[in-house]
Amino acid sequence: MKRNPTLLKTDVEVPLTIAVKAINEQGEAVDKYIACERPLTVYLNWQPIVTLMTLGARAESLALGYLKNQGFISDVKQLESVIIDWDVNSAAVLTKESTADLDEKLSEKTVTTGCGQGTVYGGFMDGLDEINLPQPQLKQSMIYRLLKNINEYNETYKNAGAVHGCGLCKEDQITGFVEDVGRHNAVDTLAGEMWLNQEAGYDKLFYTTGRLTSEMVIKVAKMGIPVLLSRSGATQMGLELAQKLGITMIARAKGRHFLVYNGAENIEFDDMPPKRAAK
Amino acid sequence: MKRNPTLLKTDVEVPLTIAVKAINEQGEAVDKYIACERPLTVYLNWQPIVTLMTLGARAESLALGYLKNQGFISDVKQLESVIIDWDVNSAAVLTKESTADLDEKLSEKTVTTGCGQGTVYGGFMDGLDEINLPQPQLKQSMIYRLLKNINEYNETYKNAGAVHGCGLCKEDQITGFVEDVGRHNAVDTLAGEMWLNQEAGYDKLFYTTGRLTSEMVIKVAKMGIPVLLSRSGATQMGLELAQKLGITMIARAKGRHFLVYNGAENIEFDDMPPKRAAK
Repeated sequence: MKRNPTLLKTDVEVPLTIAVKAINEQGEAVDKYIACERPLTVYLNWQPIVTLMTLGARAESLALGYLKNQGFISDVKQLESVIIDWDVNSAAVLTKESTADLDEKLSEKTVTTGCGQGTVYGGFMDGLDEINLPQPQLKQSMIYRLLKNINEYNETYKNAGAVHGCGLCKEDQITGFVEDVGRHNAVDTLAGEMWLNQEAGYDKLFYTTGRLTSEMVIKVAKMGIPVLLSRSGATQMGLELAQKLGITMIARAKGRHFLVYNGAENIEFDDMPPKRAAK
Repeated sequence: MKRNPTLLKTDVEVPLTIAVKAINEQGEAVDKYIACERPLTVYLNWQPIVTLMTLGARAESLALGYLKNQGFISDVKQLESVIIDWDVNSAAVLTKESTADLDEKLSEKTVTTGCGQGTVYGGFMDGLDEINLPQPQLKQSMIYRLLKNINEYNETYKNAGAVHGCGLCKEDQITGFVEDVGRHNAVDTLAGEMWLNQEAGYDKLFYTTGRLTSEMVIKVAKMGIPVLLSRSGATQMGLELAQKLGITMIARAKGRHFLVYNGAENIEFDDMPPKRAAK
């Protein structure tokens, strides 16, 4: 049995894409890759908690991040082991931490699906009031360098599509990147890695290809990260939460375009692109 | 109290987008719209079942479709009322149908998040073996007309982005279309409408802007619809389920391009676009 969570890196590798035949609009058979999707049932101290449908890239971090984000576990020092077994599609997490209130948490009948995306137990919204994020100092030129660096990731997406990518970034460098068929799985995976490594969030940026909905903003705030950068758009609740929690929220970030929905005062516009001629 | 579910059309309208200011890459304040996102707690015979984060476009159908798809309700004749109250963000569904096993269903502790998207209770996978879908006869020219017709929808997306759209289609006509911040909410809404109207699925196509993952394929199969058409890609489990259930699966459908991942034998290629010159 794996007893040391630092063995996380030994995660069994599973294929992330498979080759399939498709018929295109010419009626021709073409070779394509599609993203893998596999169930992963997460057990905490032998009790089943959730079955996640995942790409499976970093299942150990995903299981931990999910449990951490839902408030089931909190103390990394008491974590005993994480064992992924793809033969039975399970992630077994053992902790010495008290999970006596597990039944109570699981029996809170109201399950929230943030954007119909992800499963949220009662404890999810707890502790938001205690979050105190620092005010970041950002430069437009740094954001552009970061976006350029991120282009080198998204490998499964480039190959097969149908996945979302998330990146943990420090200035213009990507310190962690993961893709998953569920965008919330990708966030949870990075949250799990940060938690396991006890990495601070205050000096980080969080990049996602996904939309900035309420659940996404809450998760990033819980990671202690003050900047959220997305290729996609934002929703009203995502924006309201970003305003309330003091998250600098940059949406539609692609190429040299972006829209700052919150915290523009934290950005130095030092690299404005030439204005497009008015039509 | 609303006693007649045919009063569904009286659904209180809520705004779907709100105007906000954003700062663009020129440092200029620009007027933008973003999609609304609001919680909706669904109660079945006074018992809270789930809180969905939704755009709120057709909340009554969403509540019904969610309950139907999760196996909580099945007999439309016994449905008494659906009351949406946006003051308290609730959908109260009353049915004469027995909901005695509600506690049992809710206490099945393993919640599945298909693709990390949507919340699935234990009953979700039930009944898949009984599904017997007809083999459709499709023409490429009809698919193109349908894709063109669908372009006239997606209103919130065009205005604000950050939503997914789903359409219920009969040949090249769209008989129902809905957008939501969660793609599974959009599917559930159309499922709810079909169920309420006791509309058959065998002669329909289901269009979605979202990815064709396992949960999406299962929901469409449960609606009795034999054709699934998406602007996005597919995952391995989505494809495997489509093969198993006999669903014609067409992905990446945009303009004149598409990729048939399953059921190409059901399509008559009567409108092949001119071949692009080989590079």
